[in-house]
Amino acid sequence: MLEAIKIAKKGIGKTKTNPLVGAVVSSQGEIISKGFHEEYGQNHAEINALEKVAVKNTTLHVTLEPCSHHGKTPPCINQIISKNVKRVVIGTKDPNQKVNGEGIKKLKEAGVDVSVGCLEDQCKLLNYSYLTGILRGRASVTVKVATSIDGKVAAADGTSQWITSKKSREDGKSLRNEHDAIMVGSGTVIKDNPKLDRKSGIEEWKKILIDRREKVEKTSKIFKNGKVYLWGTGKEPSKGNIHQLNIKTLKELLEEVRKKNIQSVLCEGGKLAAELIKQNLADKIIVYMSPKIIGVKGIGFSPDNWTTLSESKKLSNVSIKTIGNNVRMEGYLTNVHRDN
Amino acid sequence: MLEAIKIAKKGIGKTKTNPLVGAVVSSQGEIISKGFHEEYGQNHAEINALEKVAVKNTTLHVTLEPCSHHGKTPPCINQIISKNVKRVVIGTKDPNQKVNGEGIKKLKEAGVDVSVGCLEDQCKLLNYSYLTGILRGRASVTVKVATSIDGKVAAADGTSQWITSKKSREDGKSLRNEHDAIMVGSGTVIKDNPKLDRKSGIEEWKKILIDRREKVEKTSKIFKNGKVYLWGTGKEPSKGNIHQLNIKTLKELLEEVRKKNIQSVLCEGGKLAAELIKQNLADKIIVYMSPKIIGVKGIGFSPDNWTTLSESKKLSNVSIKTIGNNVRMEGYLTNVHRDN
Repeated sequence: MLEAIKIAKKGIGKTKTNPLVGAVVSSQGEIISKGFHEEYGQNHAEINALEKVAVKNTTLHVTLEPCSHHGKTPPCINQIISKNVKRVVIGTKDPNQKVNGEGIKKLKEAGVDVSVGCLEDQCKLLNYSYLTGILRGRASVTVKVATSIDGKVAAADGTSQWITSKKSREDGKSLRNEHDAIMVGSGTVIKDNPKLDRKSGIEEWKKILIDRREKVEKTSKIFKNGKVYLWGTGKEPSKGNIHQLNIKTLKELLEEVRKKNIQSVLCEGGKLAAELIKQNLADKIIVYMSPKIIGVKGIGFSPDNWTTLSESKKLSNVSIKTIGNNVRMEGYLTNVHRDN
Repeated sequence: MLEAIKIAKKGIGKTKTNPLVGAVVSSQGEIISKGFHEEYGQNHAEINALEKVAVKNTTLHVTLEPCSHHGKTPPCINQIISKNVKRVVIGTKDPNQKVNGEGIKKLKEAGVDVSVGCLEDQCKLLNYSYLTGILRGRASVTVKVATSIDGKVAAADGTSQWITSKKSREDGKSLRNEHDAIMVGSGTVIKDNPKLDRKSGIEEWKKILIDRREKVEKTSKIFKNGKVYLWGTGKEPSKGNIHQLNIKTLKELLEEVRKKNIQSVLCEGGKLAAELIKQNLADKIIVYMSPKIIGVKGIGFSPDNWTTLSESKKLSNVSIKTIGNNVRMEGYLTNVHRDN
């Protein structure tokens, strides 16, 4: 399964809005074939893995439940059954309503030995944006913050350039390539007038701006390229590359952009981060921490809804990296097991 | 010099109130002898290193300027000169008024080739408590904090047990063995009633309690053993293991305990930490960070004296360690080059 997870990642950025999936075929304990979902509309992982397999009674490890429906391609379970696979080990069920246990059921009915839940956490994290979309009907949110050791993202006067090191900032910028859109509040744009670009695919790059009083000048750099989804006053029509959102809450915003095939949103900015965490809409957090103390007057990213330690939000599946004298800590704030 | 620094550390805990010193003798590029200051009152590092050296024209690397005065032992420079050392490479000058350049001067007068400043930062950090004592006339302070990623040391209601993991807390406790005394405020004692013990030498262990209204009950665990220096109302006389301090400021407190051979103080507690940082009396900070978000109502360790990013306090000589899913970041807030 580890190998299946590893090869699934080769599809990063190409499978949308399908999930990343990897599959490994073994016979008598030896891996004899592998495959992954390479591109949206192309073969699923199981098909690629089984294509050239001639022997019978194999075991198939697959990160996500095989599909049982006709989509862009025929159902994977047909191929599994016709190739006489003896045992299928599934990482996690696919909650997509077109699958949702049907794949497992039909494989069992065909006499295949099926087990579910192998390295389940890892298989779920592989597709946490896809699963968030299916389970919650909204885009997933990664919050990125650059802080001092006392948890401040800016000093009292708003100065925040630069809290973290150049290398941390470069690492932070590279996150844009792993997300479908970037989201910021008006404060950030008015203060810093950032382009919010990314290296590749600038024209298809999507930006979400929350500016409910439309205080941001239309000549600001954020509007220069890409597509901008604006949560503004609602008085103006969509025009050029500015798409007006007609929504009332952050949750609705994330549901709305999900419908426009934005699966994952990267949020930059302390105040917005706090609000997303408070509303349980931040799924993942990446903190770049710099060895500085900004002081109590500084601006944090803390939400305001807890009063005792047991209420505090615990990150799960934490990973830590040092970047020179900075620390990068990454973890999940929601999970894709249940609605939390 | 790296080797000299390494062996100097073998004296940790035994040389007080002398500094840690390591010395390495080389001849034609090969190390032929080493020595370190093993115990207070015993031979200095240079003497130990040179003792068995029979060849002439050697090079001596020593982490601290050799002494030129009679103390518990004869001046080291006499031995260096009599052993015909050709070159002496010194890590850093000894600002102790009995040395303070005199050692260097006398070696040069005797025709020895002397250079100063090799790995100077590291040699200074080796003895930052000793140097703080000499240069500032006070005990050095290490501030230890256990925080969430949003920089909180407790939740709004004061709950703080346990923010960090068991392993982090064990690591944090081991710091007590590296300091001469522990310092806390009354709030911590009233809330948690901690023993503030350490593994070894409990009877000689010193505790400093700041309790200016003497709200802490004398039956509290802190008074059970060791010696307690109390900054209280000043109305009571010293009694038993409680030594009343007659001082008015935190700075005076640190000067006073330095006179009582306390070179290094470990401070635990957020509020006191903030005050020490604010008053520029915290020399070193060790932060244990846990992947939790406590929220804006939580209690931090931030001082309240800065408003813009350029004023923020930068840590120097930072080292980072991961402890499971916790991070330990250590760095210096003052330096021992100049009075800052």
